Amino acid sequence: MDDVKAFERLASARVARLATVRPDGRAHVVPLVFALVDHVDGPVAYWAVDAKPKAATTLQRITNLEANPTAELLVDGYEEDWSRLWWVRASVTAREVVGPEERLPAQEALAAKYPQYRTDPPNGRIFRFDVTSVRGWSADG
Amino acid sequence: MDDVKAFERLASARVARLATVRPDGRAHVVPLVFALVDHVDGPVAYWAVDAKPKAATTLQRITNLEANPTAELLVDGYEEDWSRLWWVRASVTAREVVGPEERLPAQEALAAKYPQYRTDPPNGRIFRFDVTSVRGWSADG
Repeated sequence: MDDVKAFERLASARVARLATVRPDGRAHVVPLVFALVDHVDGPVAYWAVDAKPKAATTLQRITNLEANPTAELLVDGYEEDWSRLWWVRASVTAREVVGPEERLPAQEALAAKYPQYRTDPPNGRIFRFDVTSVRGWSADG
Repeated sequence: MDDVKAFERLASARVARLATVRPDGRAHVVPLVFALVDHVDGPVAYWAVDAKPKAATTLQRITNLEANPTAELLVDGYEEDWSRLWWVRASVTAREVVGPEERLPAQEALAAKYPQYRTDPPNGRIFRFDVTSVRGWSADG
């Protein structure tokens, strides 16, 4: 899969899985919704913490990212016809987005992709994942 | 989500995402098909390396597991109605399955779950993931 196709599939996926490393060195993985934007510094994925129940405690993924900001985002397509399997994996570096100048475009990108955020804005903590490399694979070559 | 429901969802999922840690300490994540069985020692997920092109080189995930056999498997359900989101995450310890006595039941479990393996048997390397804990989450509580 070429890079253009890989970025298209990454950008259009509705859900990704974020893999991080816990402070004790074990892997951690969780699904999340995200919005990919073309930033001046390169592609960036934004993710907002749900402002509801989960916000009461610090999520394990955030604890992990604060200790080790390198992570991977995976999107994939599963079908019973295995000749149509594909995945795209992005290596990323994470940091929190703070201040209205950074948060507002992130919130706008998330709301542009997900109608769910238009009625229930992403007002929790927001993280950006700077994409450092992307690799795509498809079973049909 | 209670443990029974979590195991049901894990067992019935058609694809999981495997998160491992690279020897250099960064996270790695990839989708895979697997079969969950109730082993005498507890639940075990089997995964077979595709015997086709990928077998030519050692997969990154295998390199990772050989250095650090702890990993996580994630299955999840995404729907646009976010009140229906859910995921199940299993902490696992991996090791390769060797010898016909161990490989045969693994191959049978994979073929029982995936008709694809009945015409194209999983003859590549096989790994087992011993499930050490499971956690399920659903948006509806």
